[in-house]
Amino acid sequence: MTLILSNEEIDKIITMPECIEVLEEAYVEYDAGRGAVRARTDTLAPTAMEEAVYALKSADGIAPKFKTSAVRINSDIVTCPEIDGMPRRVKVPAAPNNRWVGLVLLFDTDTGEPTAIFPDGVMQRMRVGATSGLGIKYLARENAKTLGMIGSGWQAGAQLMAACAVRDIETVKVYSPNKENREAFCREYGARMNVEIIPVESGEAAMEGMDIAMCSSSSLDYIFDKSWIAPGMHFCCIKISEIPPDAILAADRMFIHNREDKQPIISTKDLPSLEKVRGKESEVKKAVKFDTAPTLFDLISGREKGRTSDDQTTCFINNTGTGYQFAAVGAIAVKKAKELGVGNELPTDWFTEDVHP
Amino acid sequence: MTLILSNEEIDKIITMPECIEVLEEAYVEYDAGRGAVRARTDTLAPTAMEEAVYALKSADGIAPKFKTSAVRINSDIVTCPEIDGMPRRVKVPAAPNNRWVGLVLLFDTDTGEPTAIFPDGVMQRMRVGATSGLGIKYLARENAKTLGMIGSGWQAGAQLMAACAVRDIETVKVYSPNKENREAFCREYGARMNVEIIPVESGEAAMEGMDIAMCSSSSLDYIFDKSWIAPGMHFCCIKISEIPPDAILAADRMFIHNREDKQPIISTKDLPSLEKVRGKESEVKKAVKFDTAPTLFDLISGREKGRTSDDQTTCFINNTGTGYQFAAVGAIAVKKAKELGVGNELPTDWFTEDVHP
Repeated sequence: MTLILSNEEIDKIITMPECIEVLEEAYVEYDAGRGAVRARTDTLAPTAMEEAVYALKSADGIAPKFKTSAVRINSDIVTCPEIDGMPRRVKVPAAPNNRWVGLVLLFDTDTGEPTAIFPDGVMQRMRVGATSGLGIKYLARENAKTLGMIGSGWQAGAQLMAACAVRDIETVKVYSPNKENREAFCREYGARMNVEIIPVESGEAAMEGMDIAMCSSSSLDYIFDKSWIAPGMHFCCIKISEIPPDAILAADRMFIHNREDKQPIISTKDLPSLEKVRGKESEVKKAVKFDTAPTLFDLISGREKGRTSDDQTTCFINNTGTGYQFAAVGAIAVKKAKELGVGNELPTDWFTEDVHP
Repeated sequence: MTLILSNEEIDKIITMPECIEVLEEAYVEYDAGRGAVRARTDTLAPTAMEEAVYALKSADGIAPKFKTSAVRINSDIVTCPEIDGMPRRVKVPAAPNNRWVGLVLLFDTDTGEPTAIFPDGVMQRMRVGATSGLGIKYLARENAKTLGMIGSGWQAGAQLMAACAVRDIETVKVYSPNKENREAFCREYGARMNVEIIPVESGEAAMEGMDIAMCSSSSLDYIFDKSWIAPGMHFCCIKISEIPPDAILAADRMFIHNREDKQPIISTKDLPSLEKVRGKESEVKKAVKFDTAPTLFDLISGREKGRTSDDQTTCFINNTGTGYQFAAVGAIAVKKAKELGVGNELPTDWFTEDVHP
């Protein structure tokens, strides 16, 4: 049978500590050459909505240790509006019932069969969070207790969970431009994580002097400032364009997630200014010498050291994720779903065939 | 609702003439810059079966005119055995009930929603056939009546349908190394296509002197010979490595399908001799100057002429297909399936989400 899972089900069955653990195990494998990544591609075309583009994103990965491969697909109506004075990347929920479209398909690498199909939302943020969590685990001070955050959206929740999973966080400050959003975030996650979360009125008020500073926004422009960096701080982001180059270069130790970055955008010929959706990526990549920068794999394998003293500052750029992450985290989700009897089962025959394709 | 279709249903609702027509229309669009192709990638890893590899293939395409995008995924257990003295690429049906795994997902480019999910088998051969059919339409003699074929498998059936859709074929000769297979093919398609189909005992007996000669095999080595080319013949293949370079170069007019070719193979580090699965591709590509060779798009747009006399020989290399083909042909299939009430419907909410992915 092929398992159909919902975001709600996945949210209930996988925990952030599990995601971090499985991702670390998967990264050891990948580092040893026992994993495969087909980097994400963005293919764009016109769509009915004005000022929007249709974007088909896909990424593949294989995690042989977990006998699982994954394809992650996003079928998005993308806009780049200016909100609260900042250019953002905003996906429009144009599917029936005002919904977005992201899917993960998992396959068994011994039989080829599709084992599960599910929306990507929960796993998407869990794997982004778990990756930032590994950055904190290997780079932040052991005794880090305070956390500053900019961003109070979907991704921010998982970033918070990840920090709390690897450090004993006591105090969290959160800024995002919309007061209502940041207050709602603090209420929701204060209860969920059992930590004190305080909404504040500026990025500076959230970040300055904190042990860990996390950016997780939808902004396409810089939202962090070099002047906020305190001795011993670990600061990180989930989008290349959140932290300006001068701040990144000010860190004593700087790591990127990986070099398996997105491929050049493919599109029909009639679309204007496509690179806008990638914000300041190229500027930052050039500044940090992206092609030779040390990666999370270098840290996990021990080839590169993290901090050597509590005074040092560290920076982790959690750039583009991979289908490989979905293969690893997905394998755990399917295993647990089966154990717990969660999800809808469809006949695997619906998704396989008796003719040689 | 999201439509789940079976191969049997797709086989009943789409015809080869329709596929050729929609593909031609889609190619005019693509040629004008109004289509997008993310070229196929092959990502490989070990699998349980000895002497086999796990291969995850994917390809994306968007056809704005049909408001449809497509992702085609294959999750294969691939072997390269030698059969009847020829190296072949053979996929093992290792999924439950001895089945193969190929899937197409279609999306609406205005809403992003998944409109259909179905196994790729029937549409896969229909679009390969339709592409060869366009090659014949634009290159073969108007009065071509005889057809030679090497190969009697799944793909060969669609090649035959395509030739019959664009020319008044009266006689067909078919060779494949396995006598039983070729005889079964002739019985099945003789009845289906209402033409005389004769099994013969060699490639030469099938091809020599025919108006049209089609290769559609699983061979990774050359199966055609230059000496079989007769004045006025159109010869073609569905795999770059079926026709040897000297035969290709002997044609008065030669065209390839497209230049959106497969990307370099990605794999884990522990796999042996991966390029084997691509046979003699690189040898042929070099010989035919693949990067500058004229394409089917040049023919359809009229930028390049086909034959200018009945005596000329023409060659069409139907190299790698694209996700774009599935978007175009898929759009027709979904439209017809809805009109006819064919297929299983699943709630689209299962494949969409209420969180910003």
